[in-house]
Amino acid sequence: MSTQILTPRPLRPTDFAPYGDVVELGSDHVLINDGRCKRFSDLSALVAEGGRVGISLFQSEVQALPYSCTLLERHPHGSQCFVPMEGCTTLYIVAEDDAGTPVRPKAFVAHGRQAVNIAANTWHGVLTPLSDGGLYTVIDRVDGGPNLEEYPLGMALTVLPGGGAE
Amino acid sequence: MSTQILTPRPLRPTDFAPYGDVVELGSDHVLINDGRCKRFSDLSALVAEGGRVGISLFQSEVQALPYSCTLLERHPHGSQCFVPMEGCTTLYIVAEDDAGTPVRPKAFVAHGRQAVNIAANTWHGVLTPLSDGGLYTVIDRVDGGPNLEEYPLGMALTVLPGGGAE
Repeated sequence: MSTQILTPRPLRPTDFAPYGDVVELGSDHVLINDGRCKRFSDLSALVAEGGRVGISLFQSEVQALPYSCTLLERHPHGSQCFVPMEGCTTLYIVAEDDAGTPVRPKAFVAHGRQAVNIAANTWHGVLTPLSDGGLYTVIDRVDGGPNLEEYPLGMALTVLPGGGAE
Repeated sequence: MSTQILTPRPLRPTDFAPYGDVVELGSDHVLINDGRCKRFSDLSALVAEGGRVGISLFQSEVQALPYSCTLLERHPHGSQCFVPMEGCTTLYIVAEDDAGTPVRPKAFVAHGRQAVNIAANTWHGVLTPLSDGGLYTVIDRVDGGPNLEEYPLGMALTVLPGGGAE
């Protein structure tokens, strides 16, 4: 099987914007609870066409780099937000779409204080924690019927260490 | 100001059921991602009457026990789910309602792998992290107008250490 090498970069909202939202601390907030708490409000749009927004937990095996990805998937009718609960770093492989085919894959590494909301119908790899503790709260579409499209790549995307992924 | 002493207990779903849901790992799951990930699906109902479900971040000051609470609040039109992102323990003070007055307060301490979804219109204290790292993802009602009712207690609920809160 042929291989395409990807070097991951640290996750930044502007770089990730074509694929979804990075839910992280910014500057725009209000003070609540008598000044004891900062609220950074409404940071990403949740999509759950034909279903409803639900709260789930994912507990995933931790992976090591180099990591090989041979399949991407997308959810036509819903966004999918991953919130790390154990501070682990997470690998996100995403790709653009060209008439139903994922193209131009990229790899990003989120740190443990970044949640990620992948936009509806956006190609991505499966959840890939890179450090100890693969527990996530996931906010996505539930109770709405089929919402998964898979694309076997016919090759391997190999994500190397480096680029801030350690 | 008079004081009522509360000794917190560790958060268990059955004890907390009158006030909301504990979002934690259980036994009922499906395997996804080629067997690498357990999905515990749709663990709590999100309510956002007149608005929509949004994703926000709260960054709160950490508090120490004994902790004094003089005000409870509730959100008539929405549930509010708190997901700890830094593994911190969290104090939840909740109360039953008697014709608009909070009564029979209780205190619970959640560990860092428990998210909590407080039910709509349920009396509770403000977000109270007890250990380092007060960063939470919050899933609650946004964009829907007023949704806050506050109740000054006229006394102090004092939560003591003990009962598994350390």
